Order: sequence, then structure tokens, then C-alpha cells
Amino acid sequence: MTFLAELERVAQAVELELDRLLAPGLAPAPGGARLVEAMRYAALGGGKRLRPLLLIESARLFGIGEKESLPPACALECLHCYSLVHDDLPSMDDDAVRRGRPTLHIAFDEATAILAGDALHSLAFEILGDPGTHPDPAIRAELVLLLAKAAGRQGMALGQALDLSPARRDFSAADIAMMQTLKTGALFGFACEAGAVLGRAGKRDRAALIAYASALGQAYQLADDLLDAEGDAAALGKAVAKDEARGKATLVATLGTEAARKQLKEVVDSAEKALAPFGPRADNLIAAARFIATRRK
Amino acid sequence: MTFLAELERVAQAVELELDRLLAPGLAPAPGGARLVEAMRYAALGGGKRLRPLLLIESARLFGIGEKESLPPACALECLHCYSLVHDDLPSMDDDAVRRGRPTLHIAFDEATAILAGDALHSLAFEILGDPGTHPDPAIRAELVLLLAKAAGRQGMALGQALDLSPARRDFSAADIAMMQTLKTGALFGFACEAGAVLGRAGKRDRAALIAYASALGQAYQLADDLLDAEGDAAALGKAVAKDEARGKATLVATLGTEAARKQLKEVVDSAEKALAPFGPRADNLIAAARFIATRRK
Repeated sequence: MTFLAELERVAQAVELELDRLLAPGLAPAPGGARLVEAMRYAALGGGKRLRPLLLIESARLFGIGEKESLPPACALECLHCYSLVHDDLPSMDDDAVRRGRPTLHIAFDEATAILAGDALHSLAFEILGDPGTHPDPAIRAELVLLLAKAAGRQGMALGQALDLSPARRDFSAADIAMMQTLKTGALFGFACEAGAVLGRAGKRDRAALIAYASALGQAYQLADDLLDAEGDAAALGKAVAKDEARGKATLVATLGTEAARKQLKEVVDSAEKALAPFGPRADNLIAAARFIATRRK
Repeated sequence: MTFLAELERVAQAVELELDRLLAPGLAPAPGGARLVEAMRYAALGGGKRLRPLLLIESARLFGIGEKESLPPACALECLHCYSLVHDDLPSMDDDAVRRGRPTLHIAFDEATAILAGDALHSLAFEILGDPGTHPDPAIRAELVLLLAKAAGRQGMALGQALDLSPARRDFSAADIAMMQTLKTGALFGFACEAGAVLGRAGKRDRAALIAYASALGQAYQLADDLLDAEGDAAALGKAVAKDEARGKATLVATLGTEAARKQLKEVVDSAEKALAPFGPRADNLIAAARFIATRRK
């Protein structure tokens, strides 16, 4: 199966599982259905589901099937979706369009967007804590710890805080790279490390996956910056050239397009090299790195 | 030790532990210290720490000491503090004062308040997932599941969504009670059930604590509504008569002050009765219910 067909297949499986997890229940009082409607709007009907794919493929390296890896992959996607909803808010990135549709605070309202994001954030941990997700509580608790660290004050939330910081305008290339590692790399890191946890991998395999995820995160952000600088809003389904318009230094602006392209090639090579010990079993993960580097949307 | 002295002692222990958990680390890039500063502003220097006390006292019923119950109690307090920060936001309750100080989005800015709330939310689960919190991963995973459920789309977040719903103006007394059970009762329920989990309590003891917490949540909201209707802003450290000003039906407005006072007495009696099987070991929890019913701020 080609990588794109595999990505599509995983996306469908994730969509089905999220649809089940977010089934509208009985509203306990008038107006009670709106929160889950907003969560469904944020989590369903779009998204490449790249992070779930990374988790599922990382677990597969150790012979773990999707019955076991899909629930944690959906927990990760819930967390990712919460972060998109909050990042889009007027006081944050103030984005009106996401995946070709109005963002959640436009389609519903700001308070509902904040609460739906919060509830998706909680849902991620509800899934990971659930005995139905994995029979071994040690695995569940370790996944909780890793995801919470990746999301929080030393991970994704810090990355977003740095991106909004007044100091952001004067960031060096190293500062930008650090910010992006936190903002994007932390969840990629969780995806791959979670696969290792599910597979009860040894230290060396786990370190290899972490190294791969780190390179992948850098590739993702370089590609994103290149798309933002050169991309097509219609194809992307969101606004472009935002960073430039906001006076935010990007790696592309700081390094120049040519150097950024060269660096992108280098980090994709690093990602591939990190996976060498796994041989052809890692082909889908290598294809994921190439896909990220060459995507047009 | 009197109940108030015990509450004060627990509050100090929680403050010390949260101070340790939120120690400012090395900022990885310029501007990187601000997020933790905001989290510290939200979590330290105030608060009665009632929820941690409930957890610690519930665990104590089963002989569990504070070394074991303080970390989960702090996780609960982080989650509670995140909810206060988000509830105060302009698009939510739009409150400028909390605990006698400017709310977080006033003292810092709105984006930082959203992110600090998010990071406190993650931190709650980071604490619960950490092997240092409890040696048994089955206990850690169960606490994660319970807290995530209490916080999310069928718990606290739903309660807040109902409170902001356009349908809110026409809520019946039953709708208001349901909303408050979700908004406040869910975390009280977690506090007491977590004590039972830590103590590996049997079904009957666990059910007794859940019944106590449910009555306590109702008492808290009735007392809160009475304070909001009759209270003194200076003593409370926050604005009063807000609900009335916003045209929100409260139990006090719907039932009348006299009936609300009568109901408050009844739910405090229910709370006491639920704890009868524990005998005098539950005296502090009974005192907590009386404290909640009679507090002046």
C-alpha cells in the first residue's frame, strides 16, 4: 500500500473512532448538546491525521496492531485538535479559516470554542486513562505522563507562548527552531515515543524514534514556513503569509528560501538515518518524512 | 485541631507543593519565563484549598497519610485553578477581580491566560501520571480517568457551557441544580472518590463518599448563590450580585431566600448522614460541610 493510501486509511479509522468517542449523548439540561457539537466540529471532518499515523506506524515497528494503537492515537488527535481551536482564538493567532471552513469560534462563539478545546484536552486524558485503551495500567499511566509533558508548560503550550511573546520579533534562528520544536515537535515526539511504549521497546529503539520525531518536527516547520511564504491559500484551506504580515521572523525569512530548502533536505535525511536500525519495517515512517517535506497543503 | 486550623494547615502544604511543582526553570528562549509566571499567579497566593482538603481527609478515612494524598490533591487544585482562569475570561464570565486581585487576563493578557490555564490543565495530568505521585500505576491511571471525566464534556466543562447557554435564562430549579452539580459537584466528587481510590476502599465506602460529595456540591452552590445575592464584595474579594445583573436565574432567585436556606440545611444534613458509617473519623469532613454552608466569603 502506498503511503498516501495508508494515510487515507488511517484517517478514516481515526474519524470513525472519534465519531464514536464524541457520540452526542442525552443533554442533561436545555442547551447541553452544544458543547459536544462544537467538539465534533473541531475534531471531525478534516485533518490529515498525521500524528495518529506516526503513533500507529511507530507501534507497528514492534508488532503492535491497530486495535491497540488506535485509541492512544485518537487521544493524541484530540489533544492536537484542542490546540488548534485555542491557537485560532482572536487573542491568539486570530484565524478565521481552518481546513477550508470557519474556525470554531467563528462557527460557534468564543466561549464555546474555549470550552470545546478544554473538553477535548480532558478527553485526551480520559481516553488514555480508560482500561479499554490498554489492559496494562503501567502503559496507560506512562502515556498520560508523556502526553501531559508534551502538551504543557515545557512543551506545546510553552511553544505557543513563545510564538506570542513580544520578544518573538527578535528571535534568532536558534530561538525560532527551539520554539518550533516545542510547538510542533513535542506532539510528534509523543506520537513516536508512545509507539515505543506500546511496543515495550528497548532504550535504543526508543531513542531512535525520538531522534526521528525531532527531525520530523523540524522538517514539518520548515515545510510549513516555506508554504506560508510561497503557498496558495485556496490549496491550504487557510490564510498564507500570516507570519510575514505580523512581523514574525520565520526560519525562511531568517535563513532565506534556499538555505531553508537545504536545511529541510538535511533534516529529512536525519529522520531517515534515525530509522535505519528498523530496516524496511520503517518504510512508512520514512515516507511520512518525505511527504511532510514535499506537501503542497 | 479545629477545622479552620486544619484547613489552614492543608492550604500551606498545598501552597508549598505547588510552589515546588511550578518552580521557574531555565527559559529556553527569550520570553519563555512568562508562561510559568502566569501559572504561578493563577495557582499560588490564595484560595481556600477546599478541594485538596476534601481529598486528603477522604483518603485519611482509610489510613492514607498526606505523603500519598498531597500530590493528587495538588493535581486537583491545578485543574480547579485552570477552570477559574478560563471562567474569568472576557468571553466567559468576564471577571476582573478574583481573590482580591486582578484576574490573570487583566494582570497579564488574554492569550497568556488561556495558555496558562491550558498548561495548568496539562500539569494536573502530568502530576497524576508521575510514578512519584503513587507507586501503583493502576491507582494513577484510575485517578486520571476519574479527573478527566469530572473535568470534561460530561462534567465541569459541560456545567460551564450550560451556564453560558442562551437557554440559561429560562432554566428551571432542576436545570440550575443539574448545571451546578456539573460545574462544581464534579470536582468535589473527584476529591472524595480519589480518597477512596487511594485507600482502596470497598464499594460501600466509595458510594458513601460520592453521596457526601454530591450533597456538599449542592451546599456549596446554594451558599454561593446566597452570598452572591446578599454578600459583601470587599469580604468576598470578587464582585457580587453578578448573576442577577446578568439576568441569570439562580436557585435563590427561583426558590426565594428562605427556601434556599432551608434546602441548604437539608443538604448539609444529607452530607452528614452519608458519612455516618465512618463515625468520628469523618468529623473533619462533616465540619467542612458546615463550613461551606456558613462561610461569609
